Amino acid sequence: MNKSVSNKYEETTVSSQSIFQGRMISLQVDTVKLPNGETATREIVRHPGAVAVLALTEDRMLVVEQYRKPLEKSQVEIPAGKLEPGEDPMEAAKRELEEETGYRTDSLKHLCSFYTSPGFADEILHLYVAEQLEKGEVHLDEDEFLDCESITLEQAQQYIREQRISDAKTITAVYAWQVYKLTGSF
Amino acid sequence: MNKSVSNKYEETTVSSQSIFQGRMISLQVDTVKLPNGETATREIVRHPGAVAVLALTEDRMLVVEQYRKPLEKSQVEIPAGKLEPGEDPMEAAKRELEEETGYRTDSLKHLCSFYTSPGFADEILHLYVAEQLEKGEVHLDEDEFLDCESITLEQAQQYIREQRISDAKTITAVYAWQVYKLTGSF
Repeated sequence: MNKSVSNKYEETTVSSQSIFQGRMISLQVDTVKLPNGETATREIVRHPGAVAVLALTEDRMLVVEQYRKPLEKSQVEIPAGKLEPGEDPMEAAKRELEEETGYRTDSLKHLCSFYTSPGFADEILHLYVAEQLEKGEVHLDEDEFLDCESITLEQAQQYIREQRISDAKTITAVYAWQVYKLTGSF
Repeated sequence: MNKSVSNKYEETTVSSQSIFQGRMISLQVDTVKLPNGETATREIVRHPGAVAVLALTEDRMLVVEQYRKPLEKSQVEIPAGKLEPGEDPMEAAKRELEEETGYRTDSLKHLCSFYTSPGFADEILHLYVAEQLEKGEVHLDEDEFLDCESITLEQAQQYIREQRISDAKTITAVYAWQVYKLTGSF
């Protein structure tokens, strides 16, 4: 791709102020020079990246229900978690799947990777599919509490209508699964 | 839904520290009491919410290419923007569609709403479909620079493979469009 075309409205950094360094995210405010020569500020959240798995067993998907403090409610989501420093995304996906559901797999297929909110965050989420699963043991992080269940596509679509499922990665996974059932390929 | 079931791992707020109040987002760190009685901290980004539109005209979708400072690169995305205070999401979707593409519509259909990153942010994105479009005038925000084009489903899927499209809302919209073409309904 031609950089001069694809980045033609590039915003160059004039200065960058670090606001916060946390356990999961950091925040900075950049002053940028716009294509018209004016300046503007950009509020930017830095995130280490995340992984998630559409894990299918006997025509059901594995989901976990957990409390999401930013939303002040519980949500049903596919197994997911953030990358550890230097961790390979596919290894992270296997690790999170096993930690949260007890299921192990050696055959993960990369489905897609997407930025969750490119207007203010650099978080990228790598989404995988696993179809050959082996039951093992659940072992959660010490501050992690969740329940695992397996649901059909129809149940997943019902959960979306009820807003029990309402996050980007799980809705994307449910669409991918539906397309797979309709076309035979992801 | 039974709240005592759906929120059984509720994390109650012990204290909340405001870190930053910006133009687009704010950041707080909450100390919470976990279900096991221990405490933990949660880093939470507050966002006003956003809207996006899968706008279809003559079997093509409208997309805009713009520079995304958090990613330090340009991305091709469906028209989108954040909610103004008190603004109705559907009105915001019409406004953003017209501002960014010049196309107007009175017939938007709600497709789904999802949290972009429920682990650290409360941002919710409301996704709409528009099929009856009328050409008007583009009028961008003063710090907004972008190009609009219309692409076929096959081009959109190619853009995803090339990572020119790689954000949650646009990938969700492309899946929804593919399902629509396969099944006749969204």
